[in-house]
Amino acid sequence: MRYDFASDNVAGMAPEALQALNDANAGLMRAYGGDEITARAADAVRALLDADAEVRFVFSGTAANAIACSMLAWPHEAVIAHHAAHVCTDETGAPGFFGQGVGLIGLPGFSGKIDPAALEAALAEPEVGHRQPPAALSVTQATEYGAVYDEEELSALIAPARTRGLGVHMDGARLANAVASGFDPTAIARLGVDVLVLGGAKAGALCTEALVMFDRSLARRIDNRLKQAGQMASKSRFLAAPLLGLLESGAWVRHGVHANAMAARLGEGIASSTPYALAHPPEANAVFVRMPAEAQAALSARGWACYRFDDGSVRFVCSWATTPEAVDALVADIAALARVHG
Amino acid sequence: MRYDFASDNVAGMAPEALQALNDANAGLMRAYGGDEITARAADAVRALLDADAEVRFVFSGTAANAIACSMLAWPHEAVIAHHAAHVCTDETGAPGFFGQGVGLIGLPGFSGKIDPAALEAALAEPEVGHRQPPAALSVTQATEYGAVYDEEELSALIAPARTRGLGVHMDGARLANAVASGFDPTAIARLGVDVLVLGGAKAGALCTEALVMFDRSLARRIDNRLKQAGQMASKSRFLAAPLLGLLESGAWVRHGVHANAMAARLGEGIASSTPYALAHPPEANAVFVRMPAEAQAALSARGWACYRFDDGSVRFVCSWATTPEAVDALVADIAALARVHG
Amino acid sequence: MRYDFASDNVAGMAPEALQALNDANAGLMRAYGGDEITARAADAVRALLDADAEVRFVFSGTAANAIACSMLAWPHEAVIAHHAAHVCTDETGAPGFFGQGVGLIGLPGFSGKIDPAALEAALAEPEVGHRQPPAALSVTQATEYGAVYDEEELSALIAPARTRGLGVHMDGARLANAVASGFDPTAIARLGVDVLVLGGAKAGALCTEALVMFDRSLARRIDNRLKQAGQMASKSRFLAAPLLGLLESGAWVRHGVHANAMAARLGEGIASSTPYALAHPPEANAVFVRMPAEAQAALSARGWACYRFDDGSVRFVCSWATTPEAVDALVADIAALARVHG
Amino acid sequence: MRYDFASDNVAGMAPEALQALNDANAGLMRAYGGDEITARAADAVRALLDADAEVRFVFSGTAANAIACSMLAWPHEAVIAHHAAHVCTDETGAPGFFGQGVGLIGLPGFSGKIDPAALEAALAEPEVGHRQPPAALSVTQATEYGAVYDEEELSALIAPARTRGLGVHMDGARLANAVASGFDPTAIARLGVDVLVLGGAKAGALCTEALVMFDRSLARRIDNRLKQAGQMASKSRFLAAPLLGLLESGAWVRHGVHANAMAARLGEGIASSTPYALAHPPEANAVFVRMPAEAQAALSARGWACYRFDDGSVRFVCSWATTPEAVDALVADIAALARVHG
Repeated sequence: MRYDFASDNVAGMAPEALQALNDANAGLMRAYGGDEITARAADAVRALLDADAEVRFVFSGTAANAIACSMLAWPHEAVIAHHAAHVCTDETGAPGFFGQGVGLIGLPGFSGKIDPAALEAALAEPEVGHRQPPAALSVTQATEYGAVYDEEELSALIAPARTRGLGVHMDGARLANAVASGFDPTAIARLGVDVLVLGGAKAGALCTEALVMFDRSLARRIDNRLKQAGQMASKSRFLAAPLLGLLESGAWVRHGVHANAMAARLGEGIASSTPYALAHPPEANAVFVRMPAEAQAALSARGWACYRFDDGSVRFVCSWATTPEAVDALVADIAALARVHG
Repeated sequence: MRYDFASDNVAGMAPEALQALNDANAGLMRAYGGDEITARAADAVRALLDADAEVRFVFSGTAANAIACSMLAWPHEAVIAHHAAHVCTDETGAPGFFGQGVGLIGLPGFSGKIDPAALEAALAEPEVGHRQPPAALSVTQATEYGAVYDEEELSALIAPARTRGLGVHMDGARLANAVASGFDPTAIARLGVDVLVLGGAKAGALCTEALVMFDRSLARRIDNRLKQAGQMASKSRFLAAPLLGLLESGAWVRHGVHANAMAARLGEGIASSTPYALAHPPEANAVFVRMPAEAQAALSARGWACYRFDDGSVRFVCSWATTPEAVDALVADIAALARVHG
Repeated sequence: MRYDFASDNVAGMAPEALQALNDANAGLMRAYGGDEITARAADAVRALLDADAEVRFVFSGTAANAIACSMLAWPHEAVIAHHAAHVCTDETGAPGFFGQGVGLIGLPGFSGKIDPAALEAALAEPEVGHRQPPAALSVTQATEYGAVYDEEELSALIAPARTRGLGVHMDGARLANAVASGFDPTAIARLGVDVLVLGGAKAGALCTEALVMFDRSLARRIDNRLKQAGQMASKSRFLAAPLLGLLESGAWVRHGVHANAMAARLGEGIASSTPYALAHPPEANAVFVRMPAEAQAALSARGWACYRFDDGSVRFVCSWATTPEAVDALVADIAALARVHG
Repeated sequence: MRYDFASDNVAGMAPEALQALNDANAGLMRAYGGDEITARAADAVRALLDADAEVRFVFSGTAANAIACSMLAWPHEAVIAHHAAHVCTDETGAPGFFGQGVGLIGLPGFSGKIDPAALEAALAEPEVGHRQPPAALSVTQATEYGAVYDEEELSALIAPARTRGLGVHMDGARLANAVASGFDPTAIARLGVDVLVLGGAKAGALCTEALVMFDRSLARRIDNRLKQAGQMASKSRFLAAPLLGLLESGAWVRHGVHANAMAARLGEGIASSTPYALAHPPEANAVFVRMPAEAQAALSARGWACYRFDDGSVRFVCSWATTPEAVDALVADIAALARVHG
């Protein structure tokens, strides 16, 4: 049962992804994205989003986000994001590396959602030469704290940003979980997102993210850009196939529904059986629990992997592979340890 | 038969790699390289090289080479390489991107091997403030033109470079083919290479290269470096397993032997049945043919993929998946077309 | 009287600097720092610091600080600084630009001095691959808020940083003011600073800062580095001469004493004649006043330039050119406006 | 007589420049380019060029050229230039540093002028993902080898480049010499140059170059860009004033005429009194002589500074400060030494 809940990355590929990968292995195919599987996977992404976007498959969400930021902001400009967003806190400064020092402006907001008033204030700040003015807005769907924006909330951020001429990036590492919780993926294009990073790895694929450029002018010479950035797969079919398998079979959403349900079950169990409060509403596939450090340590000692976040709460993440039995066993252990550690 | 010979990247994973990948999919494992398969694969690399090096698995040879260069040379310095090396001609300037403008000094030499006299001259150039002085030497084994350095040849390049304080990078995208042709992989550490990029993709793995740091001081904070550069796999097992499968089974070399044999067969066929000369000795898995543009065009029209190189010759690459039948059919077609196009 | 107090940059060159520049204009001299005046100015810097450091003269303090940071921290590492330090807030992200995304960790502390406990906590944080760990400490002397570290305070920051292997950068844009207030410049080498940026522009020179490398290994190929970064003056004498004129004549410190005295006079005037409190002790050449926005606006409307800082206070800066009459007139106006605006 | 001819950088400021600098020193002025002198100097540049361009004054031609390139080409693209252009050979890779790896494509052509046929071939090359395709053309006026393009020649390069969508940069470090030789500066805007770097340093100013953006969209947030790049002068008046003094007085061109005349005198003297041939027609202020290494060494030993170039010839540069007596003495010495060294 070890490591179950540390991240959705601890699971392997979902069956549909693995099958598609095996199927894709046969025969010779053109390299560098010229193969038919890559083309079909791009079509599947466009179908999901109902948009005529340019699509590429890359290895790394960190790189994909950073490259997206570098498309939208010059080094002497900045990207606005939630201060707890992955681009701000978990990517070792990749936006600055790929964007040669591009700035990040971290804004507050509950559960990883940017506060519209904070955005408004940031957009209203007078520009001065010695600061990096914002050129792009980055939103994360679902958020780093397991919340899901509804369309209206996103519009309240994206519309004022676009009015001021900012580009818009969406980090969709867990977009499948957002869609599973009811978010309509066809809203993304409508809302005015310029570049989406659509997550595969956390949804049960190989290490694959789709870089989706709704603003096709951003895709000019994209193959050169990705090749230079080390994100052009020679054997592209292996990036595309697992995601294609998930999308064509509906498993991309179906597994998201399952993971979300497991998180809900976990959240309810903790709320009903332990003295600990949830730090954020579990709208996607993660549960954040306010528990003492000793309790977390005891939990780890018993083999449960989890992760303390910047807000001080402890994160448990569910995936396509999480079982109800594991959830129930975790709840029971937390409850048992709580009697000891309070 | 389409696309057979355009690159070794057109083949899928070799059976041993695919099997290992499937085996590795089961169960939950720690993310970001903390899993057991990644550890075993690193051990297998060290065993092959008989060296206590630090090993990481990355997605992209382009990125791996560029990161290696950026470890060895500052932006205001340069890396010496053969002018036809992959870092110089086929990576869209990735060394400059990852190394913020690090320079490349391209030297001549037959069949992709750096001419020692040219190296000596480059090393002897007086340093001036307005040029980027060399800080590293990059060698490619097997070379871009399908030749294989022997130990003495490598030593004749590496020793003077090290004497002048340069670091040494080896691009081993096709190291398996070099080893298959007789090159002893344990020589690499002995010769004084600091960073090796050991190729997986062209050897039949997924898109995986091993970044091997013999000089362990270069590996300080390597996980931060790779994460920032978008080359840290969350599901590291999927990068490690296929290469592990190849290495543990001996298939990494065995497939190299096969690919080389197919190239030799192709070279002999062309030499004996066509009017065309080979531009380089086929010591590894590629054959370079001096043929007219019309002949190449006609060949392409018949479905044979190949690639015209900077030296004007046409490259045909063999892989683990190349069959003798395909080779013989290609030779027959080249011969037939030669009667038409001369 | 316009613009008097917006910055110490609003003044021209001090007479000693201008005279030296005029004297330096005669005749032909070697370019790119090979001239005698540059050599003498470097000697004067070494004499002031009583240290055998490598010295170069560059155009821009922003570039000098950023280059210093890039010497001490890789892109995947970070520099610790006060959150209000110039490198963090006033250089448009230059450290990230010159250092390809190098991170900044902003720490709190009164009046621009880093709180030692905050530093200790930052140094004690466990390293993780997805964050940029600190590789250098940057201190500002005098601080952005006009305070001056004493040796003991600096030692309490530098010693623990060095113990953990961090390099140390000192931003001495206003070092002359710190020295004028009693700080011993020969302490800098003793304390273990690796790279100092010694300010010329704010001290009455042309746009010139001296990049002082106490750790000479950092100076390897420094001319290549500076040339590439656009900080190598062809006519180096014009950068060196004004600073040489200030240092040789003692005016570099003497003007600092004057500027500090003007700031003290201004601070006392405001404290005694107006209802406004000082936000920071005026230990160098700047005064920070807590005053209402309307009062500042009214002041500006009357032609007094000043600048609202991130802590909400209003900054008035004195220079070698500030006269007691201007200070007194400013105090009188603030007092008069205070009666209106409270 | 030492160092006379090594570069035009060995001279100080011309009298008009020095006077203007002294005049500009009086009083307090707004920092960071907000002063009146900077505004007047920008007007003077616009008047010279007869164009409504955005103008900034920066410290370094190397930085100015690199920043211009980074405006016109992404890191995954390249800039076409003559292989002997300053950006290619004398700036320590600054374009790659400021442009994060932006490529340079060096083309041949007599005397530093790009061969139109070579340009045509470069523009006609099919784009592939693994190379950096050209996004900009950089021309140097006067060229590195002392030649001057006429309008027709420039048009033959710029027009096809623009047709293909490339931006155009002109390195005008010695534009004054080109204008002095008859080139009409108002042609620059007409020809379709997007960014011009107009030289001050070599024309007798301080280290100052004007960054002239004819395409004003490139100037968006230029102050942020320059500040981040360390090219924003706090005391901007000191950059602007010397150039203003030269432009307003007509000395910028007048000194160019003088320098060119000295070069012509030198060229004629060498042609008539020595056995050495000129390698390039001396159309601007430099003379390139094909002379044996021993002759150059003997010349240096007698105190004459000069510089061997990549084409093997020895360069002698004249400036506003070069006297006919110095030229005649140099010719006499070369002639005398030639009798010894052949």
